[in-house]
Amino acid sequence: MRFRLSSSLSVAVCLGCFSAFLWKYLSASGGKKKDVEKETGLGLIKKKKNENFGEWYLEVVVHSEMIECYDISGCYILRPGTMAIWETMKAFFDAEIKKLKIKNCYFPLFVPPAGLKKDKDQIKGVASEVAWVTRSGKSELEVPIAIRSTSETHMNPYFSKWIWGHRDLPLKLNQWCNVVQSLQWESGNPTPLIKSREFLWQEGHTAFATKEEADKEVLEILELYRRIYEEYLAIPVVKGKKSENEKLAGALYTTSVEAFVPNTGRGIQGAASHCLGQKLDITYENDKGEKAMIWQNSWSYSTRTIGVMVMVHGDDKGLVLPPKVASIQAIVIPVPTKDADTHVIFDACFNIAAQLSEAGFRVEADLRDNYSPDWKHSHWELKGVPLRIEVEAKDLEKKQVCCVRRDNCEKVDIPVVDLIKELRDMFDRIQQNLFDVAKQKRDASIEVIRTWDEFTVALSNKKLILAPWCDEPEVEEDVTSRTKSEIGAARLLCSPFVQPELSKGTLCFASGKPAKKWSYWGRSY
Amino acid sequence: MRFRLSSSLSVAVCLGCFSAFLWKYLSASGGKKKDVEKETGLGLIKKKKNENFGEWYLEVVVHSEMIECYDISGCYILRPGTMAIWETMKAFFDAEIKKLKIKNCYFPLFVPPAGLKKDKDQIKGVASEVAWVTRSGKSELEVPIAIRSTSETHMNPYFSKWIWGHRDLPLKLNQWCNVVQSLQWESGNPTPLIKSREFLWQEGHTAFATKEEADKEVLEILELYRRIYEEYLAIPVVKGKKSENEKLAGALYTTSVEAFVPNTGRGIQGAASHCLGQKLDITYENDKGEKAMIWQNSWSYSTRTIGVMVMVHGDDKGLVLPPKVASIQAIVIPVPTKDADTHVIFDACFNIAAQLSEAGFRVEADLRDNYSPDWKHSHWELKGVPLRIEVEAKDLEKKQVCCVRRDNCEKVDIPVVDLIKELRDMFDRIQQNLFDVAKQKRDASIEVIRTWDEFTVALSNKKLILAPWCDEPEVEEDVTSRTKSEIGAARLLCSPFVQPELSKGTLCFASGKPAKKWSYWGRSY
Repeated sequence: MRFRLSSSLSVAVCLGCFSAFLWKYLSASGGKKKDVEKETGLGLIKKKKNENFGEWYLEVVVHSEMIECYDISGCYILRPGTMAIWETMKAFFDAEIKKLKIKNCYFPLFVPPAGLKKDKDQIKGVASEVAWVTRSGKSELEVPIAIRSTSETHMNPYFSKWIWGHRDLPLKLNQWCNVVQSLQWESGNPTPLIKSREFLWQEGHTAFATKEEADKEVLEILELYRRIYEEYLAIPVVKGKKSENEKLAGALYTTSVEAFVPNTGRGIQGAASHCLGQKLDITYENDKGEKAMIWQNSWSYSTRTIGVMVMVHGDDKGLVLPPKVASIQAIVIPVPTKDADTHVIFDACFNIAAQLSEAGFRVEADLRDNYSPDWKHSHWELKGVPLRIEVEAKDLEKKQVCCVRRDNCEKVDIPVVDLIKELRDMFDRIQQNLFDVAKQKRDASIEVIRTWDEFTVALSNKKLILAPWCDEPEVEEDVTSRTKSEIGAARLLCSPFVQPELSKGTLCFASGKPAKKWSYWGRSY
Repeated sequence: MRFRLSSSLSVAVCLGCFSAFLWKYLSASGGKKKDVEKETGLGLIKKKKNENFGEWYLEVVVHSEMIECYDISGCYILRPGTMAIWETMKAFFDAEIKKLKIKNCYFPLFVPPAGLKKDKDQIKGVASEVAWVTRSGKSELEVPIAIRSTSETHMNPYFSKWIWGHRDLPLKLNQWCNVVQSLQWESGNPTPLIKSREFLWQEGHTAFATKEEADKEVLEILELYRRIYEEYLAIPVVKGKKSENEKLAGALYTTSVEAFVPNTGRGIQGAASHCLGQKLDITYENDKGEKAMIWQNSWSYSTRTIGVMVMVHGDDKGLVLPPKVASIQAIVIPVPTKDADTHVIFDACFNIAAQLSEAGFRVEADLRDNYSPDWKHSHWELKGVPLRIEVEAKDLEKKQVCCVRRDNCEKVDIPVVDLIKELRDMFDRIQQNLFDVAKQKRDASIEVIRTWDEFTVALSNKKLILAPWCDEPEVEEDVTSRTKSEIGAARLLCSPFVQPELSKGTLCFASGKPAKKWSYWGRSY
């Protein structure tokens, strides 16, 4: 058994953080050859998603080979299955931002301390948590240098240098890179993908002459984030605006897409698109020859998206991948029977996989002869492959194969000649079904409340709470402090752009003052 | 003027390193608005490639906006022009390695000290030069952690964990990432792209059951590296094997593609593909049920490729980009004349650029009204755009435009209706011509020598020296020590796979012993 979790850990895991014990246990397995599951193929996922979500999640991401634990706390190896999903999303997003004339660049990993000291608002709470390089080889550096946790602060002097006049605007840059956000470095081990210390992301940094242009881009990018979640990862999200307390420090305003994990009753910020306003004090000569200030945006999404996908779609058998992002969309498995010619079946599997690959699907055949068909079923279910194509002698006689969907276990016999056409439809249906089921569960978690009592009941029932809200930061802080508990406090997730009607006289659930808008609340990652 | 170089710096620059003075000068310009060239458009590149190569190179990469200097020594900002080239090469290479069933993964940036201590051979000279993170926020880490300079050492324990038996082989992984090779951190400032401290690369790490498979892959990858240089960057390279002294420490053998910069008379290792052999001591159960050791390879190429491209093709007007990698392949420039309707010309430019973009070319129109056509010519020449399309009223009347090639200044009038067809051919011809000219210059630099005296003369004449060689490490060391000078010693670049005939009785140029093969020698980056 690769890891055993003490049940007392589940709370910590819910909060996005493992205990030191668990981490030592996980990382201790690095480099060892013993792995009973691999030999027997039994009991790959031991925990139930509904019973012990945190441990279930860890088992799934490790055993499905999405990530591997690593010898440094909070850092994880992203294995090919994870990278393939990241690359698919990246290809989509990169092509879309290029249509918006945003160009890729690459700023250094290292940030000079001077860079961190500027823009105090922006880096509130960040500077004190960055990782510092103080030594090169055996010699101490004269001045320690920081590792980027984001690049706003060290990009700014160059925006200032590059933007002279109105013709230099807009300046629209993006970079794909790794960042290190070493929060709580000493304490606990953050949940893989969701709170990894180092992660991959894109960070867009843009500058405009007018607020209108900046506002427009904030929403264009947010729409791309929605599409990543809804069209690629099949996860419903709410688009909305963050409160003053929850917005990026130093930003004018923050918009986000918010996902929800029904099993834990936690919201999770999926990606954020910020308007930084004019706070960074970069001037240029406008088209009237006057000194003016630029408007800046920044926006990012990260490998966290993949963690959200695991949490939302995974089940007790393991990962469930949407076909659009799955590195293997269908696995062809030979099912030899006593009297059948094994070679014929294996050859048929090879040929079917080859034909489907030729047609542009991502298909593989599992032709290993040392594992049983049952073992293979469990193995590929664990890995979340959307479709299993079983090839048996009796089916081959009828010139058909049996297709089994990962998302709902539906079996259907399909004539081999129709496979290419049918698969296209089937993947569309699987993709849609995953989204529909996720949306159904998410929607069933939404509870509209109007009073504090209803709020606390809904919170303890793990609901995504939609509540009328007075929009006052002090009241928000009060809600958070009144709901503090071992598993975290309630937070204001967002005020959705699509607002239900707010009838006149509606009062804020927390303050009793007149409500100004509806807002989503809940515990969050 | 953005930077002024003391002529005494040229030697340091040739060696791939700036002085502290130059670096301070360059980085001091960060954040400032004064930039006389930008205002006047005159004298963008002040230095001549033939006269002062090092300063010329710096001017070109900075003024053409390939890189921007940065506040940390040896780190540079890769601007969109550079990233576009990197992305084009990456798209090619990534697709090719996927055909070879190599999968992308991502290993953490941080390396535990334990990882560095293993595999002593492999990290000879590296461990002492890595950057160390010792602090997180304000607290000291219990154990300092290193930043990757390569990932072999921290990947190995996981190869060992993942490879149980023969069915787990081959294991073929690659990652696209940043690495920090902080050599000479305290002294000097390395040449941008060529010796940047942090750079982008891919690193492939693969494991096989047999030496035959490993050997085969080494050459397959090397061929992809050759194609990157020759087909994309239009730079001729020599494929060959490194000597025992020059191979990667700990490798069984190293192959490389070697480029040459005629102006400085220096060879430059373009990319390397290594067979690590069985030295890393990872065992598995082979198909006979016996314990066996795996064969490992590693291979990488980096953003250095782009620096080589600048050095080989650039001229006194600036950058010269091969059309296959240029982010802008053609720039359309309006040339208004006294009596002509400016609007008509500008509209024509806009339309031509739109049509060509539609046809799949990367084309932009420079419609700025505050710069003269002459200024624009110089500007886009500096930026290396392969083709300039000039639109004048008298040409429009004839329904034609004037195309000017960046590589050889050739002008040709092309009917607007034929542009799409003609451009395709023209870009092919430009690409081929760049390669041909570079090859001609490289070949003209090759000098076949047979004696020590001929060798020293050729070396001082900046030649790429092809010499008969006894293949003894001690003699190689002797050659290096006898040729030591301020501008570096001669090094054995490679023994080319394509060997000229070695007639019986040929003696080594350095030792007088019987020669075993022909080898390329020269100073190198």
